[in-house]
Amino acid sequence: MKWIKDKEFIRGNVPMTKFNIRVLTLAYLNISLGDRLLDIGAGTGSVSIEGALQGARVWAIEKEEEGIELIDKNCKKFNAEINLIKGVAPKDLPDLKFSKCFIGGSGGRMEEIFKYLNANLEMDGIVCGNFITIKNLNQFINLLKEYKYKDIEVELIQSSSMDDIGLMKGSNPIFIGKGVKI
Amino acid sequence: MKWIKDKEFIRGNVPMTKFNIRVLTLAYLNISLGDRLLDIGAGTGSVSIEGALQGARVWAIEKEEEGIELIDKNCKKFNAEINLIKGVAPKDLPDLKFSKCFIGGSGGRMEEIFKYLNANLEMDGIVCGNFITIKNLNQFINLLKEYKYKDIEVELIQSSSMDDIGLMKGSNPIFIGKGVKI
Amino acid sequence: MKWIKDKEFIRGNVPMTKFNIRVLTLAYLNISLGDRLLDIGAGTGSVSIEGALQGARVWAIEKEEEGIELIDKNCKKFNAEINLIKGVAPKDLPDLKFSKCFIGGSGGRMEEIFKYLNANLEMDGIVCGNFITIKNLNQFINLLKEYKYKDIEVELIQSSSMDDIGLMKGSNPIFIGKGVKI
Amino acid sequence: MKWIKDKEFIRGNVPMTKFNIRVLTLAYLNISLGDRLLDIGAGTGSVSIEGALQGARVWAIEKEEEGIELIDKNCKKFNAEINLIKGVAPKDLPDLKFSKCFIGGSGGRMEEIFKYLNANLEMDGIVCGNFITIKNLNQFINLLKEYKYKDIEVELIQSSSMDDIGLMKGSNPIFIGKGVKI
Repeated sequence: MKWIKDKEFIRGNVPMTKFNIRVLTLAYLNISLGDRLLDIGAGTGSVSIEGALQGARVWAIEKEEEGIELIDKNCKKFNAEINLIKGVAPKDLPDLKFSKCFIGGSGGRMEEIFKYLNANLEMDGIVCGNFITIKNLNQFINLLKEYKYKDIEVELIQSSSMDDIGLMKGSNPIFIGKGVKI
Repeated sequence: MKWIKDKEFIRGNVPMTKFNIRVLTLAYLNISLGDRLLDIGAGTGSVSIEGALQGARVWAIEKEEEGIELIDKNCKKFNAEINLIKGVAPKDLPDLKFSKCFIGGSGGRMEEIFKYLNANLEMDGIVCGNFITIKNLNQFINLLKEYKYKDIEVELIQSSSMDDIGLMKGSNPIFIGKGVKI
Repeated sequence: MKWIKDKEFIRGNVPMTKFNIRVLTLAYLNISLGDRLLDIGAGTGSVSIEGALQGARVWAIEKEEEGIELIDKNCKKFNAEINLIKGVAPKDLPDLKFSKCFIGGSGGRMEEIFKYLNANLEMDGIVCGNFITIKNLNQFINLLKEYKYKDIEVELIQSSSMDDIGLMKGSNPIFIGKGVKI
Repeated sequence: MKWIKDKEFIRGNVPMTKFNIRVLTLAYLNISLGDRLLDIGAGTGSVSIEGALQGARVWAIEKEEEGIELIDKNCKKFNAEINLIKGVAPKDLPDLKFSKCFIGGSGGRMEEIFKYLNANLEMDGIVCGNFITIKNLNQFINLLKEYKYKDIEVELIQSSSMDDIGLMKGSNPIFIGKGVKI
């Protein structure tokens, strides 16, 4: 597995899932050839692009014009093919079946997204989200339970990186949540 | 990328690199088809086996008989091929060229290992180690600098997992160090 | 400030707030002479005893007989005076006014406890809790907001300690939540 | 114990030990009435001032003019008395006996500082340092061992705080090291 480094992505001012979290998220999604991955709140498209390079067919939805342009540029840079949707989930999502779903941002519509996934995520499909607030994480866990997802995992990752002069610089703590549809 | 879960490995009482750290370690090693990976202090072989499944030819050295047997069993279970060496690094290592080296345990011979790598790790090859003591981490960083490795990265990863009743359970903090040979 | 070390407390099998978390919790409670501190779910009484030694009059409630005995022993050992209540909060709490309240465990009755505090915690009084589950932390934050507490702070503390042979050993991540009554 | 909040200190652009780390550092120093505390690399004087308010006589050394002015202003604001030395440790330190020493910054002269402490820190005196680099932490641990300090403790603290909109914001990981002189 060749992994793309943060600095290789074209970013602008759009927040991007950082390397450690991106790698772990893709590992929890357990992407394999033939997967159909839905990326909700795709940002710069870093998760989508790695997903595509790992063999998934990818649909990415993003509401901000700046994000859409960045994803497009990054797709070209890394020679990845992504079905890009400008809009809001789940309202603007196509009625397709997916095997994997990543939630990078829910825009306050997590319940509607789970309703959508109830119809559109396959049995044994995986939903995985990144969370930086207790409120959204708690809602995600509650919805996983309400919809009876199995193999629920919640990881809290705090990573720090040594900078050029040897200082350990902390990142924000990120929660990675995951469940498998029954 | 299909990733193996911790519970799938046969473990016995041998310490094993846990999922989050194993995934990140392999990401920093940036394994690709054709790599020749040397795994020093292989333990249960979890890094070696994932490396092999990701397309590397793997040599693993382990001094404990229990470890050797576990690696052998895990290779069979996951259908991975590994050149297994019972012994101590670098003394019992073959005089081969490697493109990647993972140090899971150095047995107090980090200096000798770096001397060995100076001859046996290819240009642009990556050495990556996991550390749980400040002393060994500090020595690893010093040796990376002494041997003029580039693109040095040191990550401190603290991960916690939610258990069945919702408690967040902490793991030990792990340092992942990495350098690229010039 | 002389602080009591973990190993000085008589503990039995009752879970105890560890040194780093105990110190920080008392700092967020900002105990001073004349405070009236209520300790809900007192466990071994470590927070109560430090509170008493820092000048507060303390009421501690604990439902487990083993806990009650340990608190009693620890009070004698450290020469601290605590009003000890065997029972369940808020049902068995006296109708007194408090300036500080620590919630070590709510036994699933956080809402009732906040109702009680609404009548029994003074204006500008501080409530502070320790949380190890996302669910309870989320509920605590929601109740702080519902009852319009001010100066809300939520801290996530991950601490690790070096052991005798130099290994960094992680603890569970703990959330410390705090609000000031208006 | 009333504790001073970060925002109450006059800071300028000088780095300041943050609340959680300051509280824990003072707890490891175990300050009590009559202590003689030496603060090396005092910065804004936050540790010195809390130490003074907790009953210690304090000597603080700081090389930067900006720091000296800030400490002076903070002393006035909090009505704390500190013997302030503009200069470099240990060269400009007085030949006095101390019971406690905090090292906030060593300016690359940790060895000389330990030599000084060997003569000037009392038996059973405590030295405590804050570290943000592996290199300095490792040197501090080595010097504690070389000079045969006892009750050595090394804590790694990662703390994150919830901001106004609910995001958990990480801080840099800090190591707190401590030893007791024999």
